[in-house]
Amino acid sequence: MRVTGKPVKHSRTVQTRLVLPPDTNHLNTIFGGKVLAYIDEMAALSAMKHAGGVVVTASIDSVHFRSSAKVGDLLTLESFVTYTGKTSMEVYVKVEVEHVATGERTLTTESFLTMVAVNANGEPRSVEPVLPESEDEIRLFESARVRRLQRNS
Amino acid sequence: MRVTGKPVKHSRTVQTRLVLPPDTNHLNTIFGGKVLAYIDEMAALSAMKHAGGVVVTASIDSVHFRSSAKVGDLLTLESFVTYTGKTSMEVYVKVEVEHVATGERTLTTESFLTMVAVNANGEPRSVEPVLPESEDEIRLFESARVRRLQRNS
Amino acid sequence: MRVTGKPVKHSRTVQTRLVLPPDTNHLNTIFGGKVLAYIDEMAALSAMKHAGGVVVTASIDSVHFRSSAKVGDLLTLESFVTYTGKTSMEVYVKVEVEHVATGERTLTTESFLTMVAVNANGEPRSVEPVLPESEDEIRLFESARVRRLQRNS
Amino acid sequence: MRVTGKPVKHSRTVQTRLVLPPDTNHLNTIFGGKVLAYIDEMAALSAMKHAGGVVVTASIDSVHFRSSAKVGDLLTLESFVTYTGKTSMEVYVKVEVEHVATGERTLTTESFLTMVAVNANGEPRSVEPVLPESEDEIRLFESARVRRLQRNS
Amino acid sequence: MRVTGKPVKHSRTVQTRLVLPPDTNHLNTIFGGKVLAYIDEMAALSAMKHAGGVVVTASIDSVHFRSSAKVGDLLTLESFVTYTGKTSMEVYVKVEVEHVATGERTLTTESFLTMVAVNANGEPRSVEPVLPESEDEIRLFESARVRRLQRNS
Amino acid sequence: MRVTGKPVKHSRTVQTRLVLPPDTNHLNTIFGGKVLAYIDEMAALSAMKHAGGVVVTASIDSVHFRSSAKVGDLLTLESFVTYTGKTSMEVYVKVEVEHVATGERTLTTESFLTMVAVNANGEPRSVEPVLPESEDEIRLFESARVRRLQRNS
Ligand SMILES: CC(C)(COP(=O)(O)OP(=O)(O)OC[C@H]1O[C@@H](n2cnc3c(N)ncnc32)[C@H](O)[C@@H]1OP(=O)(O)O)[C@@H](O)C(=O)NCCC(=O)NCCS
Ligand SMILES: CC(C)(COP(=O)(O)OP(=O)(O)OC[C@H]1O[C@@H](n2cnc3c(N)ncnc32)[C@H](O)[C@@H]1OP(=O)(O)O)[C@@H](O)C(=O)NCCC(=O)NCCS
Ligand SMILES: CC(C)(COP(=O)(O)OP(=O)(O)OC[C@H]1O[C@@H](n2cnc3c(N)ncnc32)[C@H](O)[C@@H]1OP(=O)(O)O)[C@@H](O)C(=O)NCCC(=O)NCCS
Ligand SMILES: CC(C)(COP(=O)(O)OP(=O)(O)OC[C@H]1O[C@@H](n2cnc3c(N)ncnc32)[C@H](O)[C@@H]1OP(=O)(O)O)[C@@H](O)C(=O)NCCC(=O)NCCS
Repeated sequence: MRVTGKPVKHSRTVQTRLVLPPDTNHLNTIFGGKVLAYIDEMAALSAMKHAGGVVVTASIDSVHFRSSAKVGDLLTLESFVTYTGKTSMEVYVKVEVEHVATGERTLTTESFLTMVAVNANGEPRSVEPVLPESEDEIRLFESARVRRLQRNS
Repeated sequence: MRVTGKPVKHSRTVQTRLVLPPDTNHLNTIFGGKVLAYIDEMAALSAMKHAGGVVVTASIDSVHFRSSAKVGDLLTLESFVTYTGKTSMEVYVKVEVEHVATGERTLTTESFLTMVAVNANGEPRSVEPVLPESEDEIRLFESARVRRLQRNS
Repeated sequence: MRVTGKPVKHSRTVQTRLVLPPDTNHLNTIFGGKVLAYIDEMAALSAMKHAGGVVVTASIDSVHFRSSAKVGDLLTLESFVTYTGKTSMEVYVKVEVEHVATGERTLTTESFLTMVAVNANGEPRSVEPVLPESEDEIRLFESARVRRLQRNS
Repeated sequence: MRVTGKPVKHSRTVQTRLVLPPDTNHLNTIFGGKVLAYIDEMAALSAMKHAGGVVVTASIDSVHFRSSAKVGDLLTLESFVTYTGKTSMEVYVKVEVEHVATGERTLTTESFLTMVAVNANGEPRSVEPVLPESEDEIRLFESARVRRLQRNS
Repeated sequence: MRVTGKPVKHSRTVQTRLVLPPDTNHLNTIFGGKVLAYIDEMAALSAMKHAGGVVVTASIDSVHFRSSAKVGDLLTLESFVTYTGKTSMEVYVKVEVEHVATGERTLTTESFLTMVAVNANGEPRSVEPVLPESEDEIRLFESARVRRLQRNS
Repeated sequence: MRVTGKPVKHSRTVQTRLVLPPDTNHLNTIFGGKVLAYIDEMAALSAMKHAGGVVVTASIDSVHFRSSAKVGDLLTLESFVTYTGKTSMEVYVKVEVEHVATGERTLTTESFLTMVAVNANGEPRSVEPVLPESEDEIRLFESARVRRLQRNS
């Protein structure tokens, strides 16, 4: 029996962003909305790579902002597809903040989003299964069913 | 006994936004990240009005995008503070899409965010209690404790 | 005799905007051009709601900026259609600035714009008459003819 | 008697802008608000050159949009200080649209703005007189008093 | 023998830009990338005027930033087509910074770009020859062949 | 003898960007200036990581755009510090375009930039030496001296 599909690593996406004044309030702290827009962009990039076409955001699980970022800090974002349904993909996104002077990194937030592949009419279309390989990928793949149940309850 | 605090309506905020090409993918559908950025902006405006100063986003509960918006549609956003802790405020945000030609409105999504008032050093500072008045406001005020427990679990 | 048309309140639009660093000069004062762009956006939203389709700006009456807004202030904008010709709509836009810490509001400026409904070829197309209801709406409706004469002189 | 001041040409400013999709509605026609923002920017540039420092917009006279611009057209803007009071400057701004394929130019609009020089506290500060030289400059200088009276009535 | 073509001055383009906070790092110094984007925009405007249609950037010669610009400074950009091949145009772009308080101007950088006229399918299409008139224009026209050789080596 | 400094990999930065309508002309082809702005941003990120602080762009070597990118394509950018002087760093930036439907990647362009570390007064400050490790890194480190000579000639 041959397993077909695309490995998780095919959708792995990395981004580094410099926090700039227009992204922040007057205490120079980045807006939550800016971080959420980055998270959605990462999820879309990973899902587009997996699906080979346009995707839309069906949902984002709750997001807790554990630490903030200031003007001049670097945000490092990482994302990959963790699980696939028929037309939907679960994507994991991690955001860390790096303080340039010290190189020190802190977790800002983690989130799971559900992206749906759509055709030119905006209707859901099926995607290839994702193939988890590393231990972490398999763990996230297996726990996805539970998150899916909670999401739809 | 005199109840002090600010009525919910003091923080009520309304916004109408025209969906434009830069907000959309090449199927002319608005990015989820754009809607999330608008939601966070609304929550910040309501919380700033209630707190009388700067706020940061502590968390956003899960968001399900029920219907999409296209270039030329109007987004109507509404928000208000539903509950207050010592330094945090829960804000409810509702997003509807209005199709201009027909005037027809559909619910896009609803969400709850937790915003925290901060002083000039970015440290949490206490806020006045919110006073719910209408039936809807009282219902959301009372259910807030349950959402708060779930959020911190 | 039945009067047909759309009531003024159908086009009433409200917006709140946080003044951010990119909107301001280096004294942190908002650019006039940013306020003018907001005013035009409000007029377009109200006119689109009334006309049920695309509109273009034919003219804006003179605008006097009575007070300025700083980074961290809120701008509150309000607009509605006051009068309709065959293809054109007069829209009133009011801009107030709210100082967050005190909740104090000051009038920034008021303006009247003329918006024209256009078809897919960009040619003027007729709109339904607007129906003023409140005293204020009737006053503005009646004074519109005078403003129209002055505008075209 | 020696006349001191700065010649009009010192503040003359020219700009060419390509109309791009984000500046337009879905008929590809530029937003009035975008043109107004460009006009205010031009007036600020001319007034800054004359005053040698920061300026704010006090008012803009009525603006009539005589022809529209589409994606791919060029906007050519020109501005200069026409008249000076103690702290205020009147600036004339002309906007033309150039169709690239034919090189044909049409007047889009003309406007007069009043800009005020301010010090670091945002208070008005006096400016040097402007010295009109060409016939056109002298004509606009002389008619400025009439516009000033109308503006303040 | 009649020489046909367009004079250099037909493509001459001038721009003045105010340096604003979003264009700068936290030392208030403009990003090199912002200046490069302005330079490419200038080259595109000049080449569009010469070619009467859409152009793409084939290359930019090396750029040395000789002086920097701060928030509140003015950038003055100037460009024109110096030489034409069959489908390509060489464009010269000069960037100066003007300190508003003193009116003092410094050269920021100069650069040469090669722009190619393209048809609706994005394929190179031929352009009219450029006709240098002034001494400077002739000098740049003649030295263009040498730059072209170096570029393609 | 102990070699001190930072390995090249410390400054390695990766970015993926979706090409969107505002980044393109009306043939949906990305502007050269947008790619140049991305390249400068990458160089700044790598240099900031190496230097542990603010940097400015001293120069960019010539850039040849070998293939273009359309709306819906992904740009993949990669950069790292190749060589260090006393206060300057040479950064290599590679840009590839990925067509989403096929996953096919093409080289768009490569470039070398020189970034200078600055202190709070904007004056050059010294940086740690970079330590090349892989074969590629050593090759680029060694060829840097030649590029440096050409750049300064
Ligand atoms: C997401 C969307 C396409 C789903 O459409 P639908 O008619 O419900 O389609 P289906 O019932 O066939 O569901 C398609 C998939 O989406 C999943 N899905 C639908 N709603 C979901 C939600 N809120 N959260 C998680 N997954 C969801 C379904 O489980 C299904 O997954 P599967 O194919 O892997 O089994 C539709 O709700 C939509 O267009 N929403 C707006 C999307 C958008 O524009 N977002 C941007 C901001 S508004
Ligand atoms: C939000 C933040 C200020 C809380 O700081 P803290 O040290 O945990 O402070 P406290 O424990 O005193 O909590 C302050 C309040 O926030 C609430 N809170 C903290 N984390 C929360 C979360 N994830 N979700 C909801 N509420 C939260 C607490 O319940 C408390 O509420 P109360 O005063 O009403 O009882 C801090 O986590 C932070 O700075 N996060 C980043 C915020 C940010 O910059 N967001 C933008 C994008 S990164
Ligand atoms: C506005 C515009 C469509 C009017 O076109 P037109 O050929 O003059 O059409 P008409 O003469 O039929 O006038 C249409 C309506 O506009 C009104 N109008 C025209 N110019 C006007 C002006 N400067 N101020 C106020 N109303 C004006 C007319 O009175 C008429 O109103 P009515 O139908 O209610 O009686 C046309 O001038 C135009 O396209 N202008 C550019 C609009 C634009 O793109 N603005 C954005 C920035 S450039
Ligand atoms: C520029 C481009 C159209 C040239 O295509 P091509 O197949 O090489 O076409 P040709 O060989 O016919 O060359 C066309 C002209 O461009 C010139 N040219 C091509 N590459 C060049 C380069 N790197 N530098 C300078 N000139 C160049 C040729 O000399 C020729 O000039 P001529 O007609 O005046 O003799 C093509 O390389 C391309 O599309 N590049 C991407 C452009 C782009 O999208 N830039 C934005 C950022 S990616």
